Amino acid sequence: MAPVPIIDRDRDGPPPSLEPLFRLLLTLGCARLCGYRGERHIALAAAVEFIHTATLLHDDVVDASDLRRGRDTANAVWGNKPAVLVGDFLFARSFQLMVEDGSLQVLEILSRTAAIIAEGEVHQLITANDTATTEAAYLEVIEAKTAALFAAASRIGAVLAERPIEEEEALGRFGRNLGIAYQLVDDMLDFSARPSEFGKSVGDDFRDGKITLPIVLAYARGDSEERAFWRRTLEEGEQGPGDLERALRLVERHGALAETLARARAYAAAAIDALSPFPASPLRRALAESAAFATERGF
Amino acid sequence: MAPVPIIDRDRDGPPPSLEPLFRLLLTLGCARLCGYRGERHIALAAAVEFIHTATLLHDDVVDASDLRRGRDTANAVWGNKPAVLVGDFLFARSFQLMVEDGSLQVLEILSRTAAIIAEGEVHQLITANDTATTEAAYLEVIEAKTAALFAAASRIGAVLAERPIEEEEALGRFGRNLGIAYQLVDDMLDFSARPSEFGKSVGDDFRDGKITLPIVLAYARGDSEERAFWRRTLEEGEQGPGDLERALRLVERHGALAETLARARAYAAAAIDALSPFPASPLRRALAESAAFATERGF
Repeated sequence: MAPVPIIDRDRDGPPPSLEPLFRLLLTLGCARLCGYRGERHIALAAAVEFIHTATLLHDDVVDASDLRRGRDTANAVWGNKPAVLVGDFLFARSFQLMVEDGSLQVLEILSRTAAIIAEGEVHQLITANDTATTEAAYLEVIEAKTAALFAAASRIGAVLAERPIEEEEALGRFGRNLGIAYQLVDDMLDFSARPSEFGKSVGDDFRDGKITLPIVLAYARGDSEERAFWRRTLEEGEQGPGDLERALRLVERHGALAETLARARAYAAAAIDALSPFPASPLRRALAESAAFATERGF
Repeated sequence: MAPVPIIDRDRDGPPPSLEPLFRLLLTLGCARLCGYRGERHIALAAAVEFIHTATLLHDDVVDASDLRRGRDTANAVWGNKPAVLVGDFLFARSFQLMVEDGSLQVLEILSRTAAIIAEGEVHQLITANDTATTEAAYLEVIEAKTAALFAAASRIGAVLAERPIEEEEALGRFGRNLGIAYQLVDDMLDFSARPSEFGKSVGDDFRDGKITLPIVLAYARGDSEERAFWRRTLEEGEQGPGDLERALRLVERHGALAETLARARAYAAAAIDALSPFPASPLRRALAESAAFATERGF
C-alpha cells in the first residue's frame, strides 16, 4: 500500500509552515540524540509549540493580519478578543505543562526564551519600516523571533538526558544557527518562491514593509534613486502597480537573494558543526540533513 | 513631621485602583502570618502583579479602551502593538521571577491561576451583553477575574513558610472570598460611588454593557418593560440621554445595590472566618480588617 501523504495539497490547501515541524524535530530528536529514552520530551514539545502558537495569535492581532499562509487568521474569524485571550491561555497552559514536567531547568530556558521573543517583537516594532536597518539589527530580530525558540527546543533534550552543560550548549548552538538559517531562507523565499509550493504569496513581506535581509542588502548596494524607491515603498508605505516587480528585480540584480542564501548556508553549516561533540549516528545524520534541507527547501 | 501621604489626589489625579494594594497585602501579609521570615515573598509579589498588569494591558486592547480610571491606557498612548507585546513580556518575566525563586509549588499555583484568568476572560466574552446572565455565571466570571489571583497571592505565603496544606487551603479561601467581596463592591460602586473618591466615572460598566450583579438582580426583579430597557441598553447597546439615570434608579429601587453589598459582606465574613486556623496576632487582625475594609470602602 502506498504511504498516505501527511500533507495532501489538493485536500489541505496551501502548505503549512515547516517551522513547527522543524522545531518538533529539534525537541524530539535532540532528546533522543542525548540518549534520553523517556516520554517527557513529548509534553515539552507541546509546551514549546504552545508558546509559538500564542505568539502567532498575538502577532496577527498586532499586525491586523487577515491571512496567514493563505488561510484566515483567528482574529479574522473570531475577532481580536478571543485571539488575544486564547494566546494568553496557551501561554499559561504551556507553563502548566512545564510545571507538570517539573524541571526548573526547562522552565528557566523557556521562560527566558519567552521574554526574549517578546522583547524581540518590540525591537522589531522599532525597526519596522526603517530602511536604515543594518544587517546586525536584522539578525537580532530574527534571533529573537525564530532562533531563540529553536535553540531552546534543542537544549531541552540535553536537560532531559541530564547531559553536561557543554552538550546542552552545543545543542543550543545547533538550534540557534539552524533557526537563523531557516528564517533567512524564509525571507529569501518571500521574493523568489513559486507560490504553488510556498504557502505564502510572493511579496508578502514587501507589502507589509518588513525589512528583511534581501532588502537590507539591496538597499546598501543600491544607488540614491533606488534608495528613494525603497524609502517610498517601505518607510512611507506608498506602493503602486509595478512596485513589487521592481523590488523583485532590484533584489535579484544586486545579488541580494543569492547572498541571503549564502548566509543561510553558512549558518546551516555552523549548525551541523555544532553537532560534532555527539558521536556519529543515524539520528545525528538526520539532524544534520534537516539543517541542510532548511536551506535547500523551496517552501 | 507629618507623614507624607502615599496618594496625593491633587498631585496624582484620580485615585488608582486599590486592587493591587490589596493583593500585595495578601502576598506579603500571608507569608508573614505563616511565620515566613525571608525575602522571597517580595519577588513573588512582583511576579503576581506582573501577571495582573499583563492582563490589564491585554484587556484594554481587547476592549479598545482609551481610559482606565481616568488615565490614558497604554494602547491609547502607544497603540495596540506595544500593549500586547509588553503584556507578553511581563507575563514571561513573571515566570522568570518564579523560576529564579525556584519553587515548583509556586509555579504550579500561578501557572494554573494564569490559565484560569485567561479562561475566565473568554467566558466573560461569551456572557458579555447577555442580560440573561445568572448570578452563578456572574460569580464564575469574577472568581476567575479577581478572586483566583487573590487566592493565589494568599496561598504563596503558606508555601514559602512550608506550612501544612490545610493552612495553604485556608489562606486560599481567605483570598478567594476577599477577592469576590472586593469585586462585588467594585461593581456596586460603579453605580453608587462619589466620582471624586472613586477612580472611575459612575456608570462605566453600564456604558460598556457589562452585566454585573446589580444588573443581574435588577433584571431578575424587574417587570417586562424594565427588562426591555435592560436588553436595549446592554444587549443591543442602544443608549441615549437619561438611560444611565434610569439604570441608576432601577438598581436603587430594586434594592440591587444594597443586596450586592450584603453579598459582599457575607464573602468578607467568610474570608475572615478562613483565618481562624491561625492564632490571634496583630497581623491576623490586620488581614481581617482589610477584608472588612474591602466592603466599607467608598473608592
